[in-house]
Amino acid sequence: MAAAPPPLKDELDIVIPTIRNLDFLEMWRPFFQPYHLIIVQDGDPTKTIKVPDGFDYELYNRNDINKILGPKASCISFKDSACRCFGYMISKKKYIFTIDDDCFVAKDPSGKQINALEQHIKNLLSPSTPLFFNTLYDPFRDGSDFVRGYPFSLREGVPTAVSHGLWLNIPDYDAPTQLVKPRERNTKYVDAVISIPKGTLFPMCGMNLAFDRDLIGPAMYFGLMGDGQPIGRYDDMWAGWCTKVICDHLGLGVKTGLPYIWHSKASNPFVNLRKEYKGIFWQEEIIPFFQAVTLSKEATTVQKCYLELSKQVEDKLGKVDPYFVKLADAMETWIQAWDALNPPNSNSNSKSKSKSK
Amino acid sequence: MAAAPPPLKDELDIVIPTIRNLDFLEMWRPFFQPYHLIIVQDGDPTKTIKVPDGFDYELYNRNDINKILGPKASCISFKDSACRCFGYMISKKKYIFTIDDDCFVAKDPSGKQINALEQHIKNLLSPSTPLFFNTLYDPFRDGSDFVRGYPFSLREGVPTAVSHGLWLNIPDYDAPTQLVKPRERNTKYVDAVISIPKGTLFPMCGMNLAFDRDLIGPAMYFGLMGDGQPIGRYDDMWAGWCTKVICDHLGLGVKTGLPYIWHSKASNPFVNLRKEYKGIFWQEEIIPFFQAVTLSKEATTVQKCYLELSKQVEDKLGKVDPYFVKLADAMETWIQAWDALNPPNSNSNSKSKSKSK
Repeated sequence: MAAAPPPLKDELDIVIPTIRNLDFLEMWRPFFQPYHLIIVQDGDPTKTIKVPDGFDYELYNRNDINKILGPKASCISFKDSACRCFGYMISKKKYIFTIDDDCFVAKDPSGKQINALEQHIKNLLSPSTPLFFNTLYDPFRDGSDFVRGYPFSLREGVPTAVSHGLWLNIPDYDAPTQLVKPRERNTKYVDAVISIPKGTLFPMCGMNLAFDRDLIGPAMYFGLMGDGQPIGRYDDMWAGWCTKVICDHLGLGVKTGLPYIWHSKASNPFVNLRKEYKGIFWQEEIIPFFQAVTLSKEATTVQKCYLELSKQVEDKLGKVDPYFVKLADAMETWIQAWDALNPPNSNSNSKSKSKSK
Repeated sequence: MAAAPPPLKDELDIVIPTIRNLDFLEMWRPFFQPYHLIIVQDGDPTKTIKVPDGFDYELYNRNDINKILGPKASCISFKDSACRCFGYMISKKKYIFTIDDDCFVAKDPSGKQINALEQHIKNLLSPSTPLFFNTLYDPFRDGSDFVRGYPFSLREGVPTAVSHGLWLNIPDYDAPTQLVKPRERNTKYVDAVISIPKGTLFPMCGMNLAFDRDLIGPAMYFGLMGDGQPIGRYDDMWAGWCTKVICDHLGLGVKTGLPYIWHSKASNPFVNLRKEYKGIFWQEEIIPFFQAVTLSKEATTVQKCYLELSKQVEDKLGKVDPYFVKLADAMETWIQAWDALNPPNSNSNSKSKSKSK
């Protein structure tokens, strides 16, 4: 009997922000090789990333981004993994899976290698339940269901826009926690997928993340980080806050939990502290801002929601620091660039540098 | 070296609604014997419940409840396990653990017997984090913490009022799901404790539940069920909805997840359907009601919150069915009875029928 074809092979791109470690793709080969990769190189464009044979990929460096987006390239971060969001924009697929190059294949408690991509696809293809909490977790998983007292009218759920995966070994901690707990490792395999309730924000990590580009793509902007910017390591957080309030507004779901990847290496806490320093203060004002945000009835598309949000960011967070005025401007540019590359009703599948070896 | 004393021995009562199964207490003996039990007999007061030797307990039947509460006994359900809430009221301890007599000791994946009470105590003694979702679950468990992007100002958490435990083997399903999936068993041990976010309702099951009586006791009213009432099996749900909106209002936390018990026996789905029938319709109006409830600034105690809630139940749900007018009245009676048995600043520890064998 022939093996089953990989799910969503022609509907999913894997976006990776630079690959420094050649073992990374070798380790993921059994799971990633059937899919198309989009690699977005975050640093020096003269350096060449060697992709092992057998992978179908396209690669963009800063020169490519500048050429494709022109002046609008200003919205894409430089020398920071936040540049990965260019890959979300250039993709023409329905689904995106993004992963960092220090994330390896984890094992479940039985010792079996975890196909992270397969679990993300399961999460995205089954509904979310953000309107009421189910105590036995994701009711759409095998062997589970809605418990007594769950309203029947809410059991259809809502479409899932985001699947947020977790990390064994090195947990995703901020610099202060890294400094205080240098030896802490995450060894707890929690066999659960949870819908994050409507109205609740969460810290979205970009290390192991999948989403439905058609449903939420334009909200997955990773902001202005890295070279020339006052902060780093808030790219995925920013995308998570924006995404969650827009999902809540549009009636879409966000899941977190399985799948796990093996996070191999802690980043340098001293470097991280320098990057996070301002963010640690700012987030104390950003979180209440996002908790209070409301979008208008006219905001019926992700783009319209995002543009409304950018105006509110300028008005309310611009007072916190001029950085947010610049960020609000970049949010608008991002939507313009998104729409230019993804014109409505286009079925274009052309790729500028697609290679198949 | 002497064994450590059981935690909170003098501060916790175990409340059990009738014991039909003598194996139940034998199986829990190693864990329950150090604690005081309050048994509330739900049916015929002439029947005698035989408690095995060695347990410190008090037992109340309907005659006792009538004698102690007088006319206010009308708020306590008859011939239904909802009568257990009389035990919450008569207790003088800070913490309550309540469990059904078909719930046995479960085993964790390593095969070790789970001390459910110990985990509930851990849950109650550590803060909750309902204001922002932590993707690595309860940050106060060993080996876990707040992840990157969790606002530092929210890391103190809030006091935990409720610890909701789960069930291996027979899941807590409604009658329609029981009928459709007669063979489904819960085999998934999810090693997590989660704070249910502020503003999110959940289906609270009374099978395996602990709470801080000082913080939330007067909201743990299990309503009017059983003999003479049009519904059953919504006693714990009702308590859960009321408790959650009051916890949200007062800045208290509700946790769900560990510990598991082994739920040995599914109740009869046909009997359950008859009990649940009206509730299945009514909950479609009850949930939106609780999702929209707001309590006033003057509601600064659980009692005040609960009385405000009872008025809103009468006004809004009274239109759904006259049952809710009767229930609203019983909610007020419950608070009067609670306050009569628990006068402010009383340190009374007297028990009417305390026995120690």
